[in-house]
Amino acid sequence: MLKLSCNVTDHIHNLFSNSRRIFVPVHRQTRPISCFQLKKEPLRAILSADHGNSSVRVADTVSGTSPADRLRFGRLMEDGFSYKEKFIVRSYEVGINKTATIETIANLLQEVACNHVQNVGFSTDGFATTLTMRKLHLIWVTARMHIEIYKYPAWSDVVEIETWCQSEGRIGTRRDWILKDCATGEVIGRATSKWVMMNQDTRRLQRVTDEVRDEYLVFCPPEPRLAFPEENNSSLKKIPKLEDPAQYSMLGLKPRRADLDMNQHVNNVTYIGWVLESIPQEIIDTHELKVITLDYRRECQQDDIVDSLTTSETPNEVVSKLTGTNGSTTSSKREHNESHFLHILRLSENGQEINRGRTQWRKKSSR
Amino acid sequence: MLKLSCNVTDHIHNLFSNSRRIFVPVHRQTRPISCFQLKKEPLRAILSADHGNSSVRVADTVSGTSPADRLRFGRLMEDGFSYKEKFIVRSYEVGINKTATIETIANLLQEVACNHVQNVGFSTDGFATTLTMRKLHLIWVTARMHIEIYKYPAWSDVVEIETWCQSEGRIGTRRDWILKDCATGEVIGRATSKWVMMNQDTRRLQRVTDEVRDEYLVFCPPEPRLAFPEENNSSLKKIPKLEDPAQYSMLGLKPRRADLDMNQHVNNVTYIGWVLESIPQEIIDTHELKVITLDYRRECQQDDIVDSLTTSETPNEVVSKLTGTNGSTTSSKREHNESHFLHILRLSENGQEINRGRTQWRKKSSR
Repeated sequence: MLKLSCNVTDHIHNLFSNSRRIFVPVHRQTRPISCFQLKKEPLRAILSADHGNSSVRVADTVSGTSPADRLRFGRLMEDGFSYKEKFIVRSYEVGINKTATIETIANLLQEVACNHVQNVGFSTDGFATTLTMRKLHLIWVTARMHIEIYKYPAWSDVVEIETWCQSEGRIGTRRDWILKDCATGEVIGRATSKWVMMNQDTRRLQRVTDEVRDEYLVFCPPEPRLAFPEENNSSLKKIPKLEDPAQYSMLGLKPRRADLDMNQHVNNVTYIGWVLESIPQEIIDTHELKVITLDYRRECQQDDIVDSLTTSETPNEVVSKLTGTNGSTTSSKREHNESHFLHILRLSENGQEINRGRTQWRKKSSR
Repeated sequence: MLKLSCNVTDHIHNLFSNSRRIFVPVHRQTRPISCFQLKKEPLRAILSADHGNSSVRVADTVSGTSPADRLRFGRLMEDGFSYKEKFIVRSYEVGINKTATIETIANLLQEVACNHVQNVGFSTDGFATTLTMRKLHLIWVTARMHIEIYKYPAWSDVVEIETWCQSEGRIGTRRDWILKDCATGEVIGRATSKWVMMNQDTRRLQRVTDEVRDEYLVFCPPEPRLAFPEENNSSLKKIPKLEDPAQYSMLGLKPRRADLDMNQHVNNVTYIGWVLESIPQEIIDTHELKVITLDYRRECQQDDIVDSLTTSETPNEVVSKLTGTNGSTTSSKREHNESHFLHILRLSENGQEINRGRTQWRKKSSR
C-alpha cells in the first residue's frame, strides 16, 4: 500500500519468542558475482518504466527521464546500499512552534524508504515487495518504529534523509534513517524500524524464506550499520504494558477516511497522532517530543473505535544511561526538564492492544 | 499561521449583505511608476533574509542562495503577477486509488499560495500579511474555497500549480489556481478562493483599507483574470442550507492535535476531511470527488465537537449548464453517473454552523 499500514497482530510476540521453531535458519549466500551484478539481477523483471534508466540519480542535475526524476533530489549512494534524499518542509507540514510535526517526520521517513526501494527495483506500489513476495501475496508490515528528533526543521528548511535496510535476525528486516539539516550539515534526528512479512490474504505473519532474503540482501550493507550504535540504547528497550487506570486518556478515537490506506487499514502514522491525543495539554504547551517508540501489535480497521491511554513513566523504568554519538543529544544522566510517558492504544470494544508506546519530551526552548 | 485557519464568523454574511455600509469605497490607485518599482517598493522592509536575493527564482537552476532556493521549483512569472511551482506528489499524500487525496490538493494549493506571497515579500509567517496588516494585527482568513479536479495525480507525478491573487470587490481578495500535469501539460484542476481580513485579537472581520489594498494590488494582475471565466459557473453559486433531517451524518468529530495550526484553531483543510466523513461509503467506493465548494462561516476551537451532515442535492438545484474552458471536463448537461451533495458542519453543542458545502462526484474509471 502506498501509505504503509501497520498490521502486526499478536502473532508477532509468538514469532519473536518462538522464532527457532517457526523460522528455518537462513544464511546469507555467498555468490560469486559482483555487487553490480547482484543489484541488477533482481531488478530486471520489476523495474517500473519511469525508473528503468535512472536507478542512480544525481542530485542537482536534470539527468532523469521523467518530470519526477528531474525534480527529485534523491540518489543511491556509491556503495549501492544507502539512499539519500532532500526534502523541503512544506507549509502544511508544520504545526504549533512553526516546526515540522512528528507526523511529518514519520511521513518523510516513509517517503524516503518508498523512494529507496522503488529506486533499487522493488515494487512501485508502496509495498516494497520482491518478485517472490508478490507471487506469494506477501507484504512488509511495521513491527516497531523508534524516532529521535534533536532539532525539528521549520517551514522551508531542507532536510536530507539517509536510509538503508538490513536483515534483522531471522525475523524480518530493519530499516534505519539519519536526518540532517542541509543548511548546517547537523544531524537532527535518527530512526530505526523493524519489519515483518505478512500474508496479504490471511493477514498472518510469515517466515522470511531464503528466496525472499536473497532478493533483498543484495541491497543491504554487508556489515551491520546501525543508526543507534550505542549499547543498550532506548530503541531496543522493551515497552512495559501500561497499567490501568491510566493517568490520561482520550477515548473514542475514530479513523477518518484520510487515515485509511489502499489496503483499507489505518496508516501507521495515524497511530502517532492518536498517541499524542492523550498527552496532557500542559506537556504539549511546554515540551516537544524528543523520542517516540511504538510497537505495532494489531491491525486497526475502518470501523474500529480506539482509546488512547497515557501514564507518566517512573524514573527507575527509564533508560538511565545513554552515551551520545551520531549527533545525538542524549547524555549520561537523565536530563532535567524531561517528561517520560508510557502509552497504549486499544480497541474500545474489547480492550485488545493495538499499539504500545513510549515517549520522551524535553522542555521547549524559548523562542 | 502556517497552516491557514478558516476563521470566518457569521459576520461574513452581514459583511457581504451590508458591504456598502461597512466598507468605505476604495479605488485602485494609478501610480506613475513602473511595475518593477511597484513590486520592489513594499518588499524592502519585510523580506526575509532567505529570500532577499531571490525574489525571482529560476526553475531547473541552482541560482538561489539557501538550500530551499536550490531545491524549490517555483518562480514568479515575467509579468510579476502569477507564480508557478512544481511539486512531486509524495507517497504519504495518496490514498485509496493510489492518487492524491483532495486534502493533498488543498494542501498544495496552500503551499503554493504561501510560497507566492513569501516570494513577493509578504510576511513569512504563513499569514501573508502586509506591513500595515501586521501593525494593525490583521490577518487573511478563508471565506470560500472552490476546487475542481479533472484528473487526480498519482504518487511521484509532478504537478505544476500556477496561482495569482486579485481584489474581490470591496470585500477582500480572491486567489485562483490552475493545476497542470507536468508530464502532459494537461490542465488537471482549477480552484478559486475568497479571503477576508480579520483582526487577530478581536476575531472580528474588518474592512480592507486603501493602505492595505495598495500594498497588495501591485502584485495583482491589472485586468481581472479568472480560473473560472465561464459565466454562471459553479464557483459562484450560493450553497443553500442543508435541511434537517440530513440523509447521512457523522456525529461527534473532534479536532486532533495535528488539526490545529499555530493559532490554535482548526486548519481549513481539516474541514474538507470532515465533510468527507459523512459521505456514504458506497459513494467513496465507486466515485471520486470532482468539485468541492466550502463556505467558511465560523471558527472551530480545540475543544469543539463537530457534526458532519450530508444530503443528496436534487437535480433541479444543481447547476445545469456549464460550458467548459481551461481544460474543464464540465459539459452542457448534467453528466450521467454523477452524484451531488449538500453538506453542513456544525457544532454538536448548539448547532451553530461552522461550514456549508457542496460536492459533486463522478464515477471512478475502471483501473
